[in-house]
Amino acid sequence: MNRKLRIAMIGGGKGAFIGAIHRIAFSMDGHYELVAGAFSSDPTISKISGEELSLDSNRVYPSFQALIHGEVSLSAEVRAEVITIVTPNHVHFEPAMMAIEAGFHVVLEKPMTFSLEEALLLHQKVSQSDCSFLLCHTYTGYPMIKQARQLVQSGMLGKIRKVFVEYPQGWLHSYLEGTGQKQATWRTDPTRSGLGGAMGDIGTHAFNLAEYVTGLEVTRICASVNSVVEGRKLDDDGAALLEFNNGASGVLMATQIAAGAENNISIRVYGEKGGISWKQEENNSLRLEWPDRPAECWRAGSSYLGEFATHNTRTPAGHPEGYLEAFANLYRNFALSILARKNGETPTPVCVDFPGTKEGVRGMAFVETMIRSSQTKAWIDFIQ
Amino acid sequence: MNRKLRIAMIGGGKGAFIGAIHRIAFSMDGHYELVAGAFSSDPTISKISGEELSLDSNRVYPSFQALIHGEVSLSAEVRAEVITIVTPNHVHFEPAMMAIEAGFHVVLEKPMTFSLEEALLLHQKVSQSDCSFLLCHTYTGYPMIKQARQLVQSGMLGKIRKVFVEYPQGWLHSYLEGTGQKQATWRTDPTRSGLGGAMGDIGTHAFNLAEYVTGLEVTRICASVNSVVEGRKLDDDGAALLEFNNGASGVLMATQIAAGAENNISIRVYGEKGGISWKQEENNSLRLEWPDRPAECWRAGSSYLGEFATHNTRTPAGHPEGYLEAFANLYRNFALSILARKNGETPTPVCVDFPGTKEGVRGMAFVETMIRSSQTKAWIDFIQ
Amino acid sequence: MNRKLRIAMIGGGKGAFIGAIHRIAFSMDGHYELVAGAFSSDPTISKISGEELSLDSNRVYPSFQALIHGEVSLSAEVRAEVITIVTPNHVHFEPAMMAIEAGFHVVLEKPMTFSLEEALLLHQKVSQSDCSFLLCHTYTGYPMIKQARQLVQSGMLGKIRKVFVEYPQGWLHSYLEGTGQKQATWRTDPTRSGLGGAMGDIGTHAFNLAEYVTGLEVTRICASVNSVVEGRKLDDDGAALLEFNNGASGVLMATQIAAGAENNISIRVYGEKGGISWKQEENNSLRLEWPDRPAECWRAGSSYLGEFATHNTRTPAGHPEGYLEAFANLYRNFALSILARKNGETPTPVCVDFPGTKEGVRGMAFVETMIRSSQTKAWIDFIQ
Amino acid sequence: MNRKLRIAMIGGGKGAFIGAIHRIAFSMDGHYELVAGAFSSDPTISKISGEELSLDSNRVYPSFQALIHGEVSLSAEVRAEVITIVTPNHVHFEPAMMAIEAGFHVVLEKPMTFSLEEALLLHQKVSQSDCSFLLCHTYTGYPMIKQARQLVQSGMLGKIRKVFVEYPQGWLHSYLEGTGQKQATWRTDPTRSGLGGAMGDIGTHAFNLAEYVTGLEVTRICASVNSVVEGRKLDDDGAALLEFNNGASGVLMATQIAAGAENNISIRVYGEKGGISWKQEENNSLRLEWPDRPAECWRAGSSYLGEFATHNTRTPAGHPEGYLEAFANLYRNFALSILARKNGETPTPVCVDFPGTKEGVRGMAFVETMIRSSQTKAWIDFIQ
Repeated sequence: MNRKLRIAMIGGGKGAFIGAIHRIAFSMDGHYELVAGAFSSDPTISKISGEELSLDSNRVYPSFQALIHGEVSLSAEVRAEVITIVTPNHVHFEPAMMAIEAGFHVVLEKPMTFSLEEALLLHQKVSQSDCSFLLCHTYTGYPMIKQARQLVQSGMLGKIRKVFVEYPQGWLHSYLEGTGQKQATWRTDPTRSGLGGAMGDIGTHAFNLAEYVTGLEVTRICASVNSVVEGRKLDDDGAALLEFNNGASGVLMATQIAAGAENNISIRVYGEKGGISWKQEENNSLRLEWPDRPAECWRAGSSYLGEFATHNTRTPAGHPEGYLEAFANLYRNFALSILARKNGETPTPVCVDFPGTKEGVRGMAFVETMIRSSQTKAWIDFIQ
Repeated sequence: MNRKLRIAMIGGGKGAFIGAIHRIAFSMDGHYELVAGAFSSDPTISKISGEELSLDSNRVYPSFQALIHGEVSLSAEVRAEVITIVTPNHVHFEPAMMAIEAGFHVVLEKPMTFSLEEALLLHQKVSQSDCSFLLCHTYTGYPMIKQARQLVQSGMLGKIRKVFVEYPQGWLHSYLEGTGQKQATWRTDPTRSGLGGAMGDIGTHAFNLAEYVTGLEVTRICASVNSVVEGRKLDDDGAALLEFNNGASGVLMATQIAAGAENNISIRVYGEKGGISWKQEENNSLRLEWPDRPAECWRAGSSYLGEFATHNTRTPAGHPEGYLEAFANLYRNFALSILARKNGETPTPVCVDFPGTKEGVRGMAFVETMIRSSQTKAWIDFIQ
Repeated sequence: MNRKLRIAMIGGGKGAFIGAIHRIAFSMDGHYELVAGAFSSDPTISKISGEELSLDSNRVYPSFQALIHGEVSLSAEVRAEVITIVTPNHVHFEPAMMAIEAGFHVVLEKPMTFSLEEALLLHQKVSQSDCSFLLCHTYTGYPMIKQARQLVQSGMLGKIRKVFVEYPQGWLHSYLEGTGQKQATWRTDPTRSGLGGAMGDIGTHAFNLAEYVTGLEVTRICASVNSVVEGRKLDDDGAALLEFNNGASGVLMATQIAAGAENNISIRVYGEKGGISWKQEENNSLRLEWPDRPAECWRAGSSYLGEFATHNTRTPAGHPEGYLEAFANLYRNFALSILARKNGETPTPVCVDFPGTKEGVRGMAFVETMIRSSQTKAWIDFIQ
Repeated sequence: MNRKLRIAMIGGGKGAFIGAIHRIAFSMDGHYELVAGAFSSDPTISKISGEELSLDSNRVYPSFQALIHGEVSLSAEVRAEVITIVTPNHVHFEPAMMAIEAGFHVVLEKPMTFSLEEALLLHQKVSQSDCSFLLCHTYTGYPMIKQARQLVQSGMLGKIRKVFVEYPQGWLHSYLEGTGQKQATWRTDPTRSGLGGAMGDIGTHAFNLAEYVTGLEVTRICASVNSVVEGRKLDDDGAALLEFNNGASGVLMATQIAAGAENNISIRVYGEKGGISWKQEENNSLRLEWPDRPAECWRAGSSYLGEFATHNTRTPAGHPEGYLEAFANLYRNFALSILARKNGETPTPVCVDFPGTKEGVRGMAFVETMIRSSQTKAWIDFIQ
């Protein structure tokens, strides 16, 4: 049986950032073959991008609609099985709905949609289909994040009491959209990004990481969300006090104006018995702290790790993996679960451990809750 | 001229934690000679403590009142010049007022008093006296914190936009006061600690550090303050969203239930042009981050540092100084400024750079603002 | 023009470690398509491995000889263009010579051959051919190692005076070969590994890194090489004092018995004006130290880096890349230089910056020099 | 009973570096009172220094001879009990011998003497006296170094196999002695420093640390010692391969030309079962690594530490202590052991754990062995 899935890409043409990242991520483990693409809303750019990727020109489409129609018309042995959508936020919902409708498995960038309403509709659509769906919350693909979740679930830390999660970035510390920089332009544009700027772009990552690692749900939020840089149309900074469904409290921070900061998303979780901490800059380590014994440094690739971390690691301890491998883990698990079902097997728990529309809906609700709490300067219930 | 000041201690007897720290801190640089003490409210403990410290038994007093009366009655060449008060919070105000009244210079542990009202009275009393006053916000004594403040003041970071400050501790993660542990018992007791538990004990340190480094003032707070451990009578955990008087925003966190955490108080400040970060665990380093050039690690003891950092360092770069040296810096600067005035000189700016009653009043107002904001679940103006 | 090269693999079947790593490394950037393989000297294992990799069964061969003969017999549009050899050391020379002879480009694991004699022959063979050759000194593929080399070459550090390079591992701290563990068994077997154990396996990496970063050549060595674990037939530990051709001195350390150590290969280089340091565990950072100004942390993906580092990075600063990306850089540059030549272009300097037979010969000479110096307990000239 | 010892200082006048460090170190814990000094060979400087230190002018002496004669002539209740000698190396032996002869306890800077011959004589003299003697190998005063030694002794690491110790400095990377800088001038002068420059100044520290932590003795050395900076009269750089008396091997590095390096002396020790590492820059942490379980970070001030570390710590975990506290530990233990004996008690093992003349002799032998091995370019037996 062939282990490769045929994949088509919407967006990600020449000049895009995240498209190239996706291609690396799905190529790494040999589970996908790129067979088609509608790489840009500009047909010429789409064409050039397809050529550069050595694609059959018949399968390089001028629009996502054309791609979906075109691929559906091909024979089952040839047509794409998975469609990955890496466009700006305002072009998530329509192609995703259409792809699911047409029976494709779908990979979608976060935040899932332009609005919470769209998110709920897409969630419903996917739930009622036989299609698999992957939402790209990359950071949950890190092996030591998997281990962190497993440690919390094992009860090793006792009841969780406190969660700190943060995503400090600096790339929007100046009015970058004024220079025409492509990434900055759409991400700060309410007509393309949605209700949230930084909250949608990176706040959702921090939020998702907190819920994923702890297995808890945020129930109440008090937020302060700001547009710090003059002239900016969307938020570029925010922080929130959090309450979780087990009574724990937390703090979330996400900012894009921390001049000089890179992408050091991090999380700390404290329970009755001990605490854990992780940060992307040292992603292969998970630190465990205890009141009465030495702190421990658990390392990716080590023999003592659980099955989730082990499954999501390729190299021995000390040979660093990173962001691209975390991303590849999402794609790999997605492929393994699809391939297992094709084989009539039930995918293993480690394979189906990837974010989907449920996480997407919560992410969109997070953005709305943050913005609304900040506008009213009040604690509010998590919207949903 | 003698370079030593005669000092007397109130509190800090056998078994106390912070008294021994103070004695190390004021002994280190040779500017003080311990001549008297009322080390405990229990006269027997006071006596034993005095013997262990090789003090003249005539100058070991059974109470702070006796000490002040006794020392005042001695000749000017003999009697204590400075009184350092290291008792629990509820025994700060009375001896401090009495000592100032009697003409002694005073060193006082933080939080300054039991209540904001007391703080305001003490501030007024000191302002109207010729006495010098030192409040022990130790962390502002670190050389790289001095450097951080100087960098912010120099404009190197541009206008400050964002401040993150935190003090995570774990030592109260369990019901330690139930075991009779002395420190835990009084610090969690509202009749001895005051309105705030963790907020007074370590929250004030974090708050003071933020205002000291940035030179800004907090104007509004939205806080969530909790008693996490069952049975505890005061807060042991809290976090707050902050607004500063220049429009910057911030996040403050202070907790004593982060099981496994030690004392890694830290601060990050981001301006328009770059950011700085410091943490106690790596206190001899100050990290500077820039959008378009490499991050820098400024190191205590280096030739390129400013006069404030340099004045507050004893060893060459790479020979670590720490908490006791930071503490000693407070005492040393206090002594140097008193000695300069005795000599008819104006103390230099580096010598008078230590916290006083103004910081003490703001600290007490911080505690009240935190508690009240948390009770009302609302943003409130900084009380004062 | 097709951007993909057809590649065949010798070795790396089911159960092998490094074969899977190579497949990830050459898949990541989309420049290779695996078309054939002789994955094991056991034809059954080779067959199963080929199936798992979804290869055409006609192109899964029972031996490397069969592979080379078989592929040569295919038409130019179909047959493999590159052969990658990932077998144990004693099966490097023969397939590599045969592949070059047959006109294939060759990728070869290090150490290049079983003996220095073989290395010299292979070097000569490749030099006289039109084939490209890549030796897998992975660590030279790291972007910050590229930057380190460029910084040294720029003269920023002044004349180089001191080099420290080390590779501490712990996986052979016990008699692992006694358990039948596959990796340990062949790597400690003189009939498969060659003259050196640890010296060939990881000493060559440290040595290569030192020469690559500094651009210098080792001229004299005084070494102490040991077989620490009882019963072991080859060295598992060693250290050496080094002299370089510009008068600099250095220390090299490579051990596999540092119980608990992972793979934190590191290098420090000091010149007249400053120093640099890098370690694999923090591979995305390069630290620069200066006598009179703050240390700097140069970060992969940053705008201020040189063209070599930039070319070898895929993600923005702060999204960690790691070992697999470093490995992929070797394959990518190898492909880009081959593709450029196919296009009649001269490959750019950044593309041809990968290790070849010259480095392979020096590596084998290093092993011989180390062993001989240790046996004679004397300083000796670098053999060659 | 008085807990304070009366101490006199030889050397350490205005402008000296290490004298001020000693005064901080012996003042910190309240066990010493400075009563006399011969602070310089220049009587005027000695006088001024004494005034600045508020000493009785009768006890500020113009020479070390005058000090010893003067103090001996005082009554037993008044005269100094301990003499601390902080002069350059060529003025170690004479005052130390004379002080012991006169019945004073002696503290002496390292390297112990100008030559190995002197060291042996001083060792004999001290052995035959009732005086206590402290040699200032400061780094052995760090609590986590104490813990490291205790861990090795406990057998937790198994038999020791490998030792890496290093002391990289950069302050002599240029011809600093040419500028007249006081420290550089005498330390690079063979008539004041002795046979070794860097080897005596910092090499002895590294060597002592290795023997102290492991409890082993170096038996053979193969060294390369260099004068890197043009015009320098003594070595400023060196490295050595080591053999220990249990069969372990090691590497020692000590350099003062590592431009940009500060004082990050560090040690790593690997045994059959695991490894430990420590570095001065993170002196409050001791890292333990294990083959099959997570690495651990043992922290100064923690409840789980042994009695040696605990005894040598003043602050709770997370409040960093540093170099001055390590130094103060030497003085404190020295005082406690003297005071115990005065009281007719046997000092506890933790109190007598400080370096003495045995370590001093080995240090001088180390310098000679390094220089001679380097001159002969050969492995030689450790001289003694």
